[in-house]
Amino acid sequence: MHDFRAPGDRMTEDCGVFGLFDPQKALHVAEICYFALYALQHRGEESGGIAVSDGQTVRHIRAKGLISDIFDEETLAQLTGHIGIGHVRYSTFGGSDPINAQPLVARYRGGTLAMAHNGSLVNAHCLRTQLEEMGAIFQTSVDTEVILNLLARMKNMGIEQAVLRAMQPVRGSYALVLQTQDQLVGIRDPFGIRPLCLGRLGEAYLIASESCAFDAVGATFVRDVRPGEVIVIDQAGLRSFQMPTPLSSALCIFEFVYFARTDSVIDGVGVYAARKAAGKRLALGDDVKADMVIGAPDSALPAAIGYAEQSGIPYGEGLAKNRYVGRTFIQPEQGMREVAVRTKLNALARNVKGKRLVLIDDSIVRGTTSKKIVDMLRMAGAREVHMRISSPPVIHPCHFGIDTATSEELIGSTRTVNQICDYIGADSLKFLSREDLLRTVEDSGCGFCMGCFDGHYPMAVEGDTQDISLIFDSEEEGI
Amino acid sequence: MHDFRAPGDRMTEDCGVFGLFDPQKALHVAEICYFALYALQHRGEESGGIAVSDGQTVRHIRAKGLISDIFDEETLAQLTGHIGIGHVRYSTFGGSDPINAQPLVARYRGGTLAMAHNGSLVNAHCLRTQLEEMGAIFQTSVDTEVILNLLARMKNMGIEQAVLRAMQPVRGSYALVLQTQDQLVGIRDPFGIRPLCLGRLGEAYLIASESCAFDAVGATFVRDVRPGEVIVIDQAGLRSFQMPTPLSSALCIFEFVYFARTDSVIDGVGVYAARKAAGKRLALGDDVKADMVIGAPDSALPAAIGYAEQSGIPYGEGLAKNRYVGRTFIQPEQGMREVAVRTKLNALARNVKGKRLVLIDDSIVRGTTSKKIVDMLRMAGAREVHMRISSPPVIHPCHFGIDTATSEELIGSTRTVNQICDYIGADSLKFLSREDLLRTVEDSGCGFCMGCFDGHYPMAVEGDTQDISLIFDSEEEGI
Amino acid sequence: MHDFRAPGDRMTEDCGVFGLFDPQKALHVAEICYFALYALQHRGEESGGIAVSDGQTVRHIRAKGLISDIFDEETLAQLTGHIGIGHVRYSTFGGSDPINAQPLVARYRGGTLAMAHNGSLVNAHCLRTQLEEMGAIFQTSVDTEVILNLLARMKNMGIEQAVLRAMQPVRGSYALVLQTQDQLVGIRDPFGIRPLCLGRLGEAYLIASESCAFDAVGATFVRDVRPGEVIVIDQAGLRSFQMPTPLSSALCIFEFVYFARTDSVIDGVGVYAARKAAGKRLALGDDVKADMVIGAPDSALPAAIGYAEQSGIPYGEGLAKNRYVGRTFIQPEQGMREVAVRTKLNALARNVKGKRLVLIDDSIVRGTTSKKIVDMLRMAGAREVHMRISSPPVIHPCHFGIDTATSEELIGSTRTVNQICDYIGADSLKFLSREDLLRTVEDSGCGFCMGCFDGHYPMAVEGDTQDISLIFDSEEEGI
Amino acid sequence: MHDFRAPGDRMTEDCGVFGLFDPQKALHVAEICYFALYALQHRGEESGGIAVSDGQTVRHIRAKGLISDIFDEETLAQLTGHIGIGHVRYSTFGGSDPINAQPLVARYRGGTLAMAHNGSLVNAHCLRTQLEEMGAIFQTSVDTEVILNLLARMKNMGIEQAVLRAMQPVRGSYALVLQTQDQLVGIRDPFGIRPLCLGRLGEAYLIASESCAFDAVGATFVRDVRPGEVIVIDQAGLRSFQMPTPLSSALCIFEFVYFARTDSVIDGVGVYAARKAAGKRLALGDDVKADMVIGAPDSALPAAIGYAEQSGIPYGEGLAKNRYVGRTFIQPEQGMREVAVRTKLNALARNVKGKRLVLIDDSIVRGTTSKKIVDMLRMAGAREVHMRISSPPVIHPCHFGIDTATSEELIGSTRTVNQICDYIGADSLKFLSREDLLRTVEDSGCGFCMGCFDGHYPMAVEGDTQDISLIFDSEEEGI
Repeated sequence: MHDFRAPGDRMTEDCGVFGLFDPQKALHVAEICYFALYALQHRGEESGGIAVSDGQTVRHIRAKGLISDIFDEETLAQLTGHIGIGHVRYSTFGGSDPINAQPLVARYRGGTLAMAHNGSLVNAHCLRTQLEEMGAIFQTSVDTEVILNLLARMKNMGIEQAVLRAMQPVRGSYALVLQTQDQLVGIRDPFGIRPLCLGRLGEAYLIASESCAFDAVGATFVRDVRPGEVIVIDQAGLRSFQMPTPLSSALCIFEFVYFARTDSVIDGVGVYAARKAAGKRLALGDDVKADMVIGAPDSALPAAIGYAEQSGIPYGEGLAKNRYVGRTFIQPEQGMREVAVRTKLNALARNVKGKRLVLIDDSIVRGTTSKKIVDMLRMAGAREVHMRISSPPVIHPCHFGIDTATSEELIGSTRTVNQICDYIGADSLKFLSREDLLRTVEDSGCGFCMGCFDGHYPMAVEGDTQDISLIFDSEEEGI
Repeated sequence: MHDFRAPGDRMTEDCGVFGLFDPQKALHVAEICYFALYALQHRGEESGGIAVSDGQTVRHIRAKGLISDIFDEETLAQLTGHIGIGHVRYSTFGGSDPINAQPLVARYRGGTLAMAHNGSLVNAHCLRTQLEEMGAIFQTSVDTEVILNLLARMKNMGIEQAVLRAMQPVRGSYALVLQTQDQLVGIRDPFGIRPLCLGRLGEAYLIASESCAFDAVGATFVRDVRPGEVIVIDQAGLRSFQMPTPLSSALCIFEFVYFARTDSVIDGVGVYAARKAAGKRLALGDDVKADMVIGAPDSALPAAIGYAEQSGIPYGEGLAKNRYVGRTFIQPEQGMREVAVRTKLNALARNVKGKRLVLIDDSIVRGTTSKKIVDMLRMAGAREVHMRISSPPVIHPCHFGIDTATSEELIGSTRTVNQICDYIGADSLKFLSREDLLRTVEDSGCGFCMGCFDGHYPMAVEGDTQDISLIFDSEEEGI
Repeated sequence: MHDFRAPGDRMTEDCGVFGLFDPQKALHVAEICYFALYALQHRGEESGGIAVSDGQTVRHIRAKGLISDIFDEETLAQLTGHIGIGHVRYSTFGGSDPINAQPLVARYRGGTLAMAHNGSLVNAHCLRTQLEEMGAIFQTSVDTEVILNLLARMKNMGIEQAVLRAMQPVRGSYALVLQTQDQLVGIRDPFGIRPLCLGRLGEAYLIASESCAFDAVGATFVRDVRPGEVIVIDQAGLRSFQMPTPLSSALCIFEFVYFARTDSVIDGVGVYAARKAAGKRLALGDDVKADMVIGAPDSALPAAIGYAEQSGIPYGEGLAKNRYVGRTFIQPEQGMREVAVRTKLNALARNVKGKRLVLIDDSIVRGTTSKKIVDMLRMAGAREVHMRISSPPVIHPCHFGIDTATSEELIGSTRTVNQICDYIGADSLKFLSREDLLRTVEDSGCGFCMGCFDGHYPMAVEGDTQDISLIFDSEEEGI
Repeated sequence: MHDFRAPGDRMTEDCGVFGLFDPQKALHVAEICYFALYALQHRGEESGGIAVSDGQTVRHIRAKGLISDIFDEETLAQLTGHIGIGHVRYSTFGGSDPINAQPLVARYRGGTLAMAHNGSLVNAHCLRTQLEEMGAIFQTSVDTEVILNLLARMKNMGIEQAVLRAMQPVRGSYALVLQTQDQLVGIRDPFGIRPLCLGRLGEAYLIASESCAFDAVGATFVRDVRPGEVIVIDQAGLRSFQMPTPLSSALCIFEFVYFARTDSVIDGVGVYAARKAAGKRLALGDDVKADMVIGAPDSALPAAIGYAEQSGIPYGEGLAKNRYVGRTFIQPEQGMREVAVRTKLNALARNVKGKRLVLIDDSIVRGTTSKKIVDMLRMAGAREVHMRISSPPVIHPCHFGIDTATSEELIGSTRTVNQICDYIGADSLKFLSREDLLRTVEDSGCGFCMGCFDGHYPMAVEGDTQDISLIFDSEEEGI
């Protein structure tokens, strides 16, 4: 991640998606995809791609690297058309072969289909095995190819019916953007685990993982895509269908804790406001005596500002981040290892010396980075370091698209709060409670998945066995 | 091509394939694939790839570019295992996305399958449509994916039966190398249109498009794979099966005219010998008076030597080829266009001045390059230029894997020999007859496809309609 | 710059220098140079280089690009030795030829000399012309080559005398790090215009443009190099000499306004503290009524925090910076131009809506970016935007190493404060006064160059004519 | 080299130079330089560069790699002007720093000077030391910089006088192309050791190492530059001056043996004709009984054709060269080493089997490659292999620009012909005599350096001590 933390000591999101349908064929569709994906880059840095259809042909380019590395004026100019989708991806399996990059593009009996997916299926293996039994071959290792195969087998029933039927056996989290030659489709899973929203730019509709993508291209936020909603956009306009949904939705609360950009608004809640509110709630009833509140840059700054405002302790900066962090970087040799964190982050010694600090961070995964920061602040002369975390301890792995460590590697899973405090060397340590975290997003009115904090997942994580033959029984219909 | 000719003025081969099974697990399989593909590089310069299985996992790397550009020590070291296949490819469709590079690798119900293909199916569209009707999706535009899908649908019948059955509806040319996790399979189409041969290196078996690949890695040529033969190599050794074959085979005679390397031996005929014999036959009964015989470098030199030997006219060199031809190269600006050929090829003015020349080339496609060479020799002072072509005029397009111009662009299709002679500006022009060309390869005992010379193709080139459902009727068996 | 501002709308520093002498030959000298330059990267992004001497041979690598792009483990491993110097450079003249990258390395009569330079000579042309008259040739366009030539002509007098004598005719700003085969030399110009400081890592001495480079490699800050001081480090330890200096020094005050990293301490003043103090001074006597104080990220945040603290108006974030800014980036097409700033920076609409804002920035050069930010905040719903600049208007160009616009392009040079306020569309605009800015750095006890604010430069900027023949009169001595 | 031989087993040329003056300012000067250097690429593959002057400014680009890798349309378009020079270079000293690439470009008191040099000075060290004593610094390790420094010290005497005087103390081989802002100068050393010739393209004059560069750009060969001649071309036309020359010239005879392209004509002798004549002379009086004469591709083919013609033994091809040789290439692992030569070169087994062969090569340096070829032919079934070398044994190192092995590594220096024959495993071995080799070039009328064959160099190779102060005594004059 574009972050000072060591690899592994971070929850990492796995994808960002975007789509655009321009009925008037007047916009630079590929360029808008480029800038939108640039705004969503924080959701995935490993690979990316754009597919554009002109109604006849779907052209696509995808590769490893950041969006700004993959595309230039020349490559964007090759992607002509009025319907575009794009994808940024966190991790690539399968080595240097970029075949796992998205969007996936396939020809099938109905024409050409391109698909970009954020999320993770819990029953992918079960579905994949059944499809293989039916003769399907899989050229990638991404779940998206499973959905693509299910869709391709729907017959003569129109895209809405095809989607509704094909998604029946699919369990897991998915925010999908799908492109046929002449349609753009957005699908959000019935629990609404991953975010997806709808925007407008003149006559054109846009779909994106986060609203910041709309701001980046001068578009307007219209509304969130609802859990279980299927949105179809074509020359005739926008149509919406609903898949069966559970009583309660389960938006991933970590979007507010860390993943999403502060300028995004998700399911009615501003990300910045939620983070600042988390800081305020941390301060309520916290009677620590301190001279300054500082945040771990950049993600914990809103919570630090909130904590300072609530507590009356002055806000300040105690850590300077090297602005070149995130670039490829040599690994320091043995004997210079401790230098590694410091080259990314440095204490503002003059500003922390002799002071009692409240240090805010958004979460603790393995604890190694927190330990190094506390140590760095002490060496810079801080008198006391009271660590406050604007979310509960991460205790359980995520099964819905977030790359967490295994339970054993999660410090919250193996140690008590006091033991963690000892480990990281802070004078005191407090986490925001589960209830307080929920209160920071209560304006949304939707439900949340807090599985990584409490182990309560919205569905069985092994996935139940779904017999996909049931969705293919009817032979009369089709896309 | 790595050649001085202008783009378009050349018949171009589309692929080379290679495979290796090392039962003793002692060889550097990926490295041997590398050197073998390096020896087959003339069969395809656009992209390449290697897939290696260790019995469990298939790892693969493929990309655009020459083999020496794609691989280095580090990437080869990632490809561990004892079964390897590789591919070089002439042209990539689909833009900069390397998804069309081979080997194709797919998971299916039976495990993992990797495939490298040289050839072209005449009924690919028909097969693809039926497979799509059955729910298949296609992520590439190569015919190989069709075969991969057919094979993946065979059930519980062992690889031999699966191959025999899956290939039933397939029409066209194919030299295939196929790799399961624990087997290497070589398949040559029933007409034997594209070459394929078997080699040995210690206990290991090798399969290659041309025997020069065996020489390059220190292996021994065993024999050609027979038309319609399926060879399966696994830990138990080599087994061979036969698909139904027509009465007569139809090896592409252009392999001898131009494609293959001079040091290869195909279906019993040495390529060098065939080319030299073609030159001798050209000389028989040719009563031209000349001072020197020269060849267009490098492909026509054997024929020129043969012509000289037969005619008694001294052999010499009249054209010097820049040894850096083939590298990326800027396009000369308007007003320097005529320089282009000359930077690749230059006349040896001192050696041709005042002389009557017999100029041998292997074929004429559009005639533009021949015209430029004749012109260059005249400007260098040649008194007469008598052009002799060691094959008949190319009149018809190829449907079996060779990228020819369309009929209208083939100068042999629109002009008489005299008109061609006028166009290229030679003093006289003769082509080798169809019959004489056949005599140069008569030792082989096999039949030949001469479709590009006479329009007689070994099968219907539109492909007849094959109902693939017939091959899936039996549900009891499988791979 | 690694910044959201448009090209041209920024004062840009031109270099950072670093040096290391490790008498015990135990450290990874090249690696330490790498991490130190990584910490100094903000001083120059265009090119960089490292030269390392093992007492016999000087090896060097330099190229265009960021330090992390130029070097990897393999290249660093080539640079063996115990004396190293490095350089990061803002701009390269002379096209794609990397010959202007530093350190410059030259053989001369005394051995090998490598040199890294931050600064700009005002009489470079005069010196260069005289040297040319004496037969010197110049292969680069950097001033450093002039100094190198002067030094190379000193004879048998030891490095200290050679430096003292060679620098006599040199006028301008220079923080120099110089390496012979067995010595490391640091030189700061008599006015101390560019910063330079001394550090320690075990037995090793380090010299750097900013103290943050010491923190990055785990070294300790010892003291600033004094204006006019020459420091020579060799196996025998450290010696210091003094060049004649003026009564008052003239450190570039823009180091505190914008250039230096917040965690650096320069001539006794912490950069963060100076910036925060500037914000406080801005607030003193400012009676604007507002709901929130925000800063332009990231450079103006300390001043915004200071302003908030002093004024009692709550501090907040109003602008989100895309963390991928700074990478290569396509230029948006006509009709999407206004998108450009927004992809780099976005307003936190929910946080600024309906609010009266105090917006702090560190400086205004052309005003174009300020105008866009004010506009963006208004479109996001801000009720009022009161802009406060933590430095005076930039009115004059810099002649000492900073790449400013020409006077005509400086909005402070052509418009009054009210006119600038109108241009950028703010509700009110105030600049920090020259006197107040000086007070923020008064702890240093040194003098400052504020030429860009008031036109008073520490020396004649055309440079007077220096006759260099005078320094070469004595023929008996030498280095 | 672009050759099948192992590194070290080859005499390697070190440079090619080119220059162009277009008085009518109508030509694409940079593009012509590009194509000319492409034709001279065989003289140096490691780095290259082009400098172009428009009368005011000299722009240059130079880098490691082949000309076609360094330049593209975009970079060539930056080099605008009517005077251009270019360079290809064999080896770079000094690691990855491209500062040693040529042309060298320097500002000096007279303006800007760019220089490209083929050759090697025997007294470079002596001159360099004296220049250093006079204050010069050296930023590269190439001899060219010495000449540049000498020239830069000439005062007010016009370019002709400056060149005549500056070259006085210079000893060694040099074919120089030099560019001031408004002149093109060609200089060939007094012995004419390295070739240099003059061409014409419309009104423009060209200077090149070999005439093949003229053919490549459609220009006409005018004449060779004479030993010791200085040619100055400017808007007024061409002027020629003569430096003092020895009684006899000493053109490097290896240009005919191997270096030059077969289509070049040097000092009146066609390279192809000389090589063919060498083959004929080898055959005269050789009574070997054989069935076929073959040559080591590609450099020995003319001699093989000559041998066949003279002896009456049929000419044929026995070795096929992989046309991709020369590209970056992995090193085969232990146990596959013997494969290395074979991947570059392969025997035409069917053509050599059972035959008695005469194998022609142009020279033997270490003998390792010859040994491998003989072995390869025997394994392919050759009955006898009689090796004939179209030059004498190489016994002494070259001091004039050719990178030979040291004497100990030269097999001709440590073994008799019989011992060499045993070592390489041939049935017989003969070398062309020194006298016969001279006869192949007798048409030229010039003298030759055969130092590598007989140890008689045209001048003292340690270089005598030249006091350069003598050439600077007169202060009144200048360029």
